[in-house]
Amino acid sequence: MNQSKPLIFISNDDGVDAPGLRHLIECVSYMGEVIAVAPSAPRSGQSSAITVDAPLRITPCPGFDGAKVYSVSGTPVDCVKLGLHALVNRKPDIMLSGVNHGSNSGNSVIYSGTMGAAMEACMVGIPAIGFSLLHHSIEADFSQTTPYIINFTKKVLENGLPDQVCLNVNIPAKCVPKGFKIVKAARGYWTEEYAEYADPSGKPFYWLTGRFVNTEPDNPDTDEYWLQREYVSVVPVRPDQTDSDAISRISDLLCR
Amino acid sequence: MNQSKPLIFISNDDGVDAPGLRHLIECVSYMGEVIAVAPSAPRSGQSSAITVDAPLRITPCPGFDGAKVYSVSGTPVDCVKLGLHALVNRKPDIMLSGVNHGSNSGNSVIYSGTMGAAMEACMVGIPAIGFSLLHHSIEADFSQTTPYIINFTKKVLENGLPDQVCLNVNIPAKCVPKGFKIVKAARGYWTEEYAEYADPSGKPFYWLTGRFVNTEPDNPDTDEYWLQREYVSVVPVRPDQTDSDAISRISDLLCR
Repeated sequence: MNQSKPLIFISNDDGVDAPGLRHLIECVSYMGEVIAVAPSAPRSGQSSAITVDAPLRITPCPGFDGAKVYSVSGTPVDCVKLGLHALVNRKPDIMLSGVNHGSNSGNSVIYSGTMGAAMEACMVGIPAIGFSLLHHSIEADFSQTTPYIINFTKKVLENGLPDQVCLNVNIPAKCVPKGFKIVKAARGYWTEEYAEYADPSGKPFYWLTGRFVNTEPDNPDTDEYWLQREYVSVVPVRPDQTDSDAISRISDLLCR
Repeated sequence: MNQSKPLIFISNDDGVDAPGLRHLIECVSYMGEVIAVAPSAPRSGQSSAITVDAPLRITPCPGFDGAKVYSVSGTPVDCVKLGLHALVNRKPDIMLSGVNHGSNSGNSVIYSGTMGAAMEACMVGIPAIGFSLLHHSIEADFSQTTPYIINFTKKVLENGLPDQVCLNVNIPAKCVPKGFKIVKAARGYWTEEYAEYADPSGKPFYWLTGRFVNTEPDNPDTDEYWLQREYVSVVPVRPDQTDSDAISRISDLLCR
């Protein structure tokens, strides 16, 4: 093994067979030694979930472009934790997650397994970037993501990232992006959240659906604003959830 | 239904049968109308995971102390989303999560289903508090949590919480707490993360375990510091993961 080549650790939440994972590996394999550890099945919407009540398996998969590929029978974060524990013998120089089939923009990024995996790497000090294409199809065309993946991966390999910050990159699908903007996640909420059904015996059941309503559509500091205008969005994301700025207000409130 | 009584929405991640859920309901049932919607089975470590690829069921459970209790066949966040969609006819005045059997302190709170549920309520504008007892046992004694649950719930019902901030409350188990401190989550990492086994055919499998190593044990601004010293910790938590302070640094870095 050539220790001087950067070690690039890759995961995703759409599973080891997702074309987005393959595309991501193909984009960066020339830059270093690539190891990909991805869920054995699609695990969208898994956030930072971990498997605490069941064993995990690692399965070697066919590699390509020089990359080693494994699947793990768990969540995206399980893939990162177990991959770093059992499959690498040095700390990766960068962690890339995706390319996700579908957007991870706005404040609903909190549910994203793609960003859950990136935040896990970030927490242990590995510069991490999550990539998402605004197209859900298994047959989506990922070619427009290539220049952004290459550019951002190179820049982060060269310059690193601030401690405890990772990047959430969303890429429009319907056009050639006009450029990129570094912004915050738009705030919004989901409406019409569940489709309602009755089973053959008449008992109700529910299926998550819904539509994201952006509550700040005219705010040019947000990702949704620029994605609508055919730009790539880059949001700095922090795994640390403490709102330090709120400590004094909470103090006033609880000590009244 | 008395519309003037506060509506208290409760969930957890240990499941509808957990003694911690029962204790939480018993503490606050005198303060208002209580509805509890909890996972049908334990779902620890689920973070903000949502079920996107399967239907969800709601099952009515025996109520007590005047509380209505339901289970949902999903994650803690599913319970909050589906409960708010299908089981309440007005916006709850407060959301309480727990009492969790085990700690949710330090930066590993990112994996917490208890706080995933609280953040979900916070995101839709409901003041939310997660409570955790530093004792994993199903037979843990929750009595020491009572005064803190009552005090904080009353204060938040009276005064609300700042927009997009919820509270993560951890309560020591081995002593009567000396008081409470409003602090940030301690930073640390997990070590010896997996136990390794071989199945009867000799194939390896892994089980998550590990020990949290606090990298700032002497920092009096952190939750771990005060929990060690027999105080209750209160951490303001924000679901918005954008690190706005990092935008200009990321800009320098990617535009070099």
